[in-house]
Amino acid sequence: MKLSAEVISIGDEMTSGARLDTNSQWLSQRLGELGVEVRFQTTVGDMLRDNIDVFNIAIERVDLVICTGGLGPTQDDLTREALAEVSDEPLEFRQQAMDHIESLFSSRKRPMPERNRVQAMFPKSSQIIPNPQGTAPGIDLFIDRGSHARCRVFALPGVPAEMQLMFKETVSHQIAAMSGGGSVIRHHVMKFFGIGESDMEQRLGDMISRDRQPRVGITVSAATISLRITAMTESAERCTAQIAQTKTEILNRVGELYFGDGENYEQYHVIDSMLRARGESLALLELGFAAPLGDWFAALGETPAFRGGLSLAAMPNVSLEEIQSRMRSDWLLVVNAYPAIADDLVGHVPASEVEFILVAPNGKQHAHRITIGGHPDILQPRIGKTAMAWFRGVVAGLRTA
Amino acid sequence: MKLSAEVISIGDEMTSGARLDTNSQWLSQRLGELGVEVRFQTTVGDMLRDNIDVFNIAIERVDLVICTGGLGPTQDDLTREALAEVSDEPLEFRQQAMDHIESLFSSRKRPMPERNRVQAMFPKSSQIIPNPQGTAPGIDLFIDRGSHARCRVFALPGVPAEMQLMFKETVSHQIAAMSGGGSVIRHHVMKFFGIGESDMEQRLGDMISRDRQPRVGITVSAATISLRITAMTESAERCTAQIAQTKTEILNRVGELYFGDGENYEQYHVIDSMLRARGESLALLELGFAAPLGDWFAALGETPAFRGGLSLAAMPNVSLEEIQSRMRSDWLLVVNAYPAIADDLVGHVPASEVEFILVAPNGKQHAHRITIGGHPDILQPRIGKTAMAWFRGVVAGLRTA
Repeated sequence: MKLSAEVISIGDEMTSGARLDTNSQWLSQRLGELGVEVRFQTTVGDMLRDNIDVFNIAIERVDLVICTGGLGPTQDDLTREALAEVSDEPLEFRQQAMDHIESLFSSRKRPMPERNRVQAMFPKSSQIIPNPQGTAPGIDLFIDRGSHARCRVFALPGVPAEMQLMFKETVSHQIAAMSGGGSVIRHHVMKFFGIGESDMEQRLGDMISRDRQPRVGITVSAATISLRITAMTESAERCTAQIAQTKTEILNRVGELYFGDGENYEQYHVIDSMLRARGESLALLELGFAAPLGDWFAALGETPAFRGGLSLAAMPNVSLEEIQSRMRSDWLLVVNAYPAIADDLVGHVPASEVEFILVAPNGKQHAHRITIGGHPDILQPRIGKTAMAWFRGVVAGLRTA
Repeated sequence: MKLSAEVISIGDEMTSGARLDTNSQWLSQRLGELGVEVRFQTTVGDMLRDNIDVFNIAIERVDLVICTGGLGPTQDDLTREALAEVSDEPLEFRQQAMDHIESLFSSRKRPMPERNRVQAMFPKSSQIIPNPQGTAPGIDLFIDRGSHARCRVFALPGVPAEMQLMFKETVSHQIAAMSGGGSVIRHHVMKFFGIGESDMEQRLGDMISRDRQPRVGITVSAATISLRITAMTESAERCTAQIAQTKTEILNRVGELYFGDGENYEQYHVIDSMLRARGESLALLELGFAAPLGDWFAALGETPAFRGGLSLAAMPNVSLEEIQSRMRSDWLLVVNAYPAIADDLVGHVPASEVEFILVAPNGKQHAHRITIGGHPDILQPRIGKTAMAWFRGVVAGLRTA
C-alpha cells in the first residue's frame, strides 16, 4: 500500500525565520526511501489553536503525520495538548516515561525540575517512542477520522540528533511494517563528482523511479552527488543482495563519475587512500580568494599522505619546487586562483579561468585550465572539488602509463 | 493593522527532500521585519489539486499569502492555474509581460521557446510583479473570501536571487503600505561574537519585542550573532535617525561583543582594518582537523595585512619564529589544535582543550587556552572565531598598554 504523509514542524523560531528547519527535509528523504509519498510539509508557531488546526487538516488529507518539536517541558510546548485535543483523548501519566526522564537527570547529576513531569503525559491510547538521548519521549498515536482508515501520528522532539535516532530505531520500522515492504531496512550511499544533477537524473533514467525496488534517491551538496540506495525486505541478506545488484547497475550507467561509498566519504578520502597505497604525499598551495582544500584535507588528521596546505593571495616569489621541498611532499597541487566574489553580487558569478598546476614527484609540472562560474555559495568548493578530480585523474593516468 | 501571513513553497523537489527550502525562512524574516506575523509555512508538491487545497486553506486563515515556485514555463509549473482556480478568474494574456520575456531571450541571443508564452498569462484582476533578472514575472492578486476582508496573494519565482530582488523592489513596499507603517524601509545589520543566542536575547530584553519600532531581529550563523534593525517610516531621514538611536541603545547593552556592521562583515574584516591601520600583517598556522581561518582570510584577497595561512596536522619541527619569518608577517596566530570529530558521532562533541598562541612582532609569545565542545557542525568555525576574538583583544590591549 502506497502511504501518503505530511511532515509538520512546530515552533515560533521557524515561523519567525530565526531558525532554518532542516528536520522536514531529513524526514522527507527518509520517508521517500520507505516508499511513502510526502505531499505536504507544514510549519506552525507555538499557538495551541493553530497547532490543533494544522493537525486536523493533516489527519484528514494523509495517512501518516510526522511532527517535530513542541515536546519540551515548557509552556510553549503544546504538541501533547494539541494531540489530546485532536484525538479527543485525555492525557495520562506514564510511569515508564517518568522513570526514563528521572534516570537521565540523575545520570547527569542534576535535580529534575518539577515541570519535566509533563513530559511523561501521553494521550490515552498512544504508545511511547523511546528517546535514548533526551528527556522528551515521542508519541505514536492512531487517530480516528470517521469514514476512512485511521491516520497515524508520530510526534518526535525537534532536536535533530534525538529525532533522527528515534526515527531510525523505532519509527522507520513501524512505517516499513505498515507499508508491507518488509521491516528490515538497509541503506547504501554512493558518491559522484563531475556531473550536474539533471544530467545525472537523465543518465539514471528509470532507476530513480519512485516505484523501483530498492529505491535510489539523489541529493546534491556543493556539486557532490550522493545516490542513496534503500532496500526494504524481510531479511538483511536479501537487502544486501538487492543493494549489490543496484550498485552494479548504477556503475554501468555512471561508473566513471563514481568515487566511493558512504555519507561522509569525500574525494580527499580517495586521494588519501590512493597516495598511501603509493607511499606518496601531497601538499596544497591555494591562491586567491578562498582555500577550501586546506580546510578539507585537514579533516584527515595525521596521515602520511597529506603534508599540509598553504594559502596565499597570489603566487609567491619562491618556486613551486621550493614549496614542495619545504613541505616535504611528493606532489604539490596548486589552485591558481579562486576568483573574487563581489559582496553585492546578485545572481551568478560570471565565468572566469582557473588554472590547476601539479608538480609531480619527479619535478615534472602538469597544468590544466578550466572556465568556471555559477552560484556564489558553491563556486569556491566546486573549484576545489574539480581540482581534486583532476588530480585523481592525472595520478591514475601516470600509474597506468 | 497587524497583518498575518502564510508562506507557501511549491515543488516536488522540496516535498521529496531533494532540496532544502531556504526561501520560506528568508521571507519569514523579511515579513517579521515589516511587522507581519507569519503563522504558517506550507510546502506542497507539483500536484494541481494539492496546490488548490493549500491556497484555499491559506486565504481563509491569513491576510497575506506569499508563495514561491511554480511560475516556470513547464507543465509542472501550476501556480498560475491554481491561482486562477482559487480566485475563480480566467487567465489572460499580458503583452507587457510577453515583451519582457522576449527581450530577455533576445538579450541572451537565444530563441524563445513557444512554451514560455504561458509565463505571460495572468489572472484577470492581478498585477504583474516585475522580475528584472528572469523570465518568470510575479503575480499580485487580491482574492475575495466572502465575509471578511480580501486576502492578498503575492506569487514569486522559486529562484532565490530573483525572488529576493522582487520582494525587495516591489512586494516589501506594497506590504509596508498595507500595514500603514510608512512605505520607506531601511535595514541595518550589527554583528556580535562571544555570546549564546539566548543570553543575547536576555540582555536585549524588550528591545527584541515584536511591537518595538524600529524592530530588532536576531539571527545566528555558526556562533556569530546578527542583529538586524528595520525601520519603516514615511521618510529615509526618519529611518536613518531611528536606526542610529536603536544602534546606540544596543551598544549600551551588549557593546563589548560588537565587532562591526553589515550582513557580510566578519571578524577577519575587523582584523584586516585593524592591522592595516597599524601597518602590520598576520599569518596563520592551523593545526589539527580543520583550517577554517585560512579559507576565511583568503576571502580578503590581496591585502597587506594578511600574508597567508598554513595548515598542518601537528606542530612542525621548525620554530614558530621561523614560520613567522618565512611568511614575512608581523604576527603569527596559531590554533593548536582543531579536534577530531568522529564520523559516527551522535549528538555533541565532548569538550576538549584548544590552545591559541600568538607570536608578536617583537617575538614575544602570548598563549591562551579554552575548553570547548558542542555541536559538530559549528565546532571548528566556533574555535576559529574564538581565536579571532582573542587575537583582537590581545592586539587592542597591547596598543593601549
